[in-house]
Amino acid sequence: MVSKSEIKLITSLQQKKYRIKHGLFIAEGIKVINEFLNSNFKLHKIFATEKGLFDDDFAVEQITKDELKKLSALKTPSNTLAVFYIKETNPCPDHEGLVVALDDVRDPGNLGTIIRMCDWFGVENLICSANTVDCYNPKVIQSTMGSLTRVNIIYLDLEHYLKETQKPVFCATMEGANIYKTEVGNNAILVMGNEANGISPSILSLVSKQVSIPRFGKLQATESLNVATATAILLSEFKRR
Amino acid sequence: MVSKSEIKLITSLQQKKYRIKHGLFIAEGIKVINEFLNSNFKLHKIFATEKGLFDDDFAVEQITKDELKKLSALKTPSNTLAVFYIKETNPCPDHEGLVVALDDVRDPGNLGTIIRMCDWFGVENLICSANTVDCYNPKVIQSTMGSLTRVNIIYLDLEHYLKETQKPVFCATMEGANIYKTEVGNNAILVMGNEANGISPSILSLVSKQVSIPRFGKLQATESLNVATATAILLSEFKRR
Repeated sequence: MVSKSEIKLITSLQQKKYRIKHGLFIAEGIKVINEFLNSNFKLHKIFATEKGLFDDDFAVEQITKDELKKLSALKTPSNTLAVFYIKETNPCPDHEGLVVALDDVRDPGNLGTIIRMCDWFGVENLICSANTVDCYNPKVIQSTMGSLTRVNIIYLDLEHYLKETQKPVFCATMEGANIYKTEVGNNAILVMGNEANGISPSILSLVSKQVSIPRFGKLQATESLNVATATAILLSEFKRR
Repeated sequence: MVSKSEIKLITSLQQKKYRIKHGLFIAEGIKVINEFLNSNFKLHKIFATEKGLFDDDFAVEQITKDELKKLSALKTPSNTLAVFYIKETNPCPDHEGLVVALDDVRDPGNLGTIIRMCDWFGVENLICSANTVDCYNPKVIQSTMGSLTRVNIIYLDLEHYLKETQKPVFCATMEGANIYKTEVGNNAILVMGNEANGISPSILSLVSKQVSIPRFGKLQATESLNVATATAILLSEFKRR
């Protein structure tokens, strides 16, 4: 039996201000929850509509499907939902290797895909400007499929961070140099911009090199690539050398 | 004033069987509609909640916001919706250059992204197996942002097509050869598989070469890349040479 106050608390975690207030976030589905359980995230509570989904080590509260539906952020809830503590991240600005930095990416699906990309390509640190969508947003959590447990996501003042770094700073723009013909190293920062507005002018002035993915299609072809797709292609280019 | 029978017809177009029955599909929003108007798709009807959105050449029926909401497939309808005729495609199996073929891709968002990718990378022909999601699905139409007007999408018996082709056939699998070290030509077929099951066994037996995108992250990293993301990276590799 889930109490009214518990329903209120858990559904409130769909909003950033309550996630910050309580220091908690939700994850749904056995696969995603298991990824968090097997990481250094600390569990607050698990709810499930069936027995035997998890090890006996975890105290699982059994609830009905109707109760789960009240807690869930999904249109079609699965059979389990868990609440975890938000992890403190080390904002140390001295990050090894290739770093991806996001300048106000707003779409949770895009952020989720980019986190998965970073995981795939071994990018350990993902820097997000303060206005980038929150990585504990339920839609981000669901679309990362657990990659969030392996990528450090650090929200900070991007302008300040880029001013302080010793690394070369690349960014993706429509007018940049052909990425296929550009020497890029494995110790750099790659900045990706907002879905509608691209890289903000204040950030652009701090960039060492603008790069772009050539368009092979007709002149009137797709105006620009989706930010997550462009990140995938660029990460592949940074890593393939 | 939109009649009840018109509402019934237009909302029915959200389902494939009625799109086939009537030979019509819907597009929403000024940007997407303009792409279709400027292409060789034939217009059936435009509805708009405002005057002056389109040239006087087009007979636009003005309706209220509430009426548009009844017609729309979107959660947040824009200010215009149009109905176009489905285009006959030439199923001629002799396609020039690089061809992308989809083996039962089911997610409309993935198909939409792949169509945009084809447009960007100048892939003129996209082959879809009979069970691939319909490209006139409203979610596909909205996510292609008009690229559908520039890419020929051909639904056919994929097994038969691959048996007949003279081109080398590549496909993406987890066990394939490192794409960064594989010679791929610009006159080939690249087959991408279903989101959950990958390439079906009957198709796999017709493939000349399996390729994969190396994982650089930790061993337990993301199990596989999303099919649209993987298509983006592979198209970039086929085209960059």
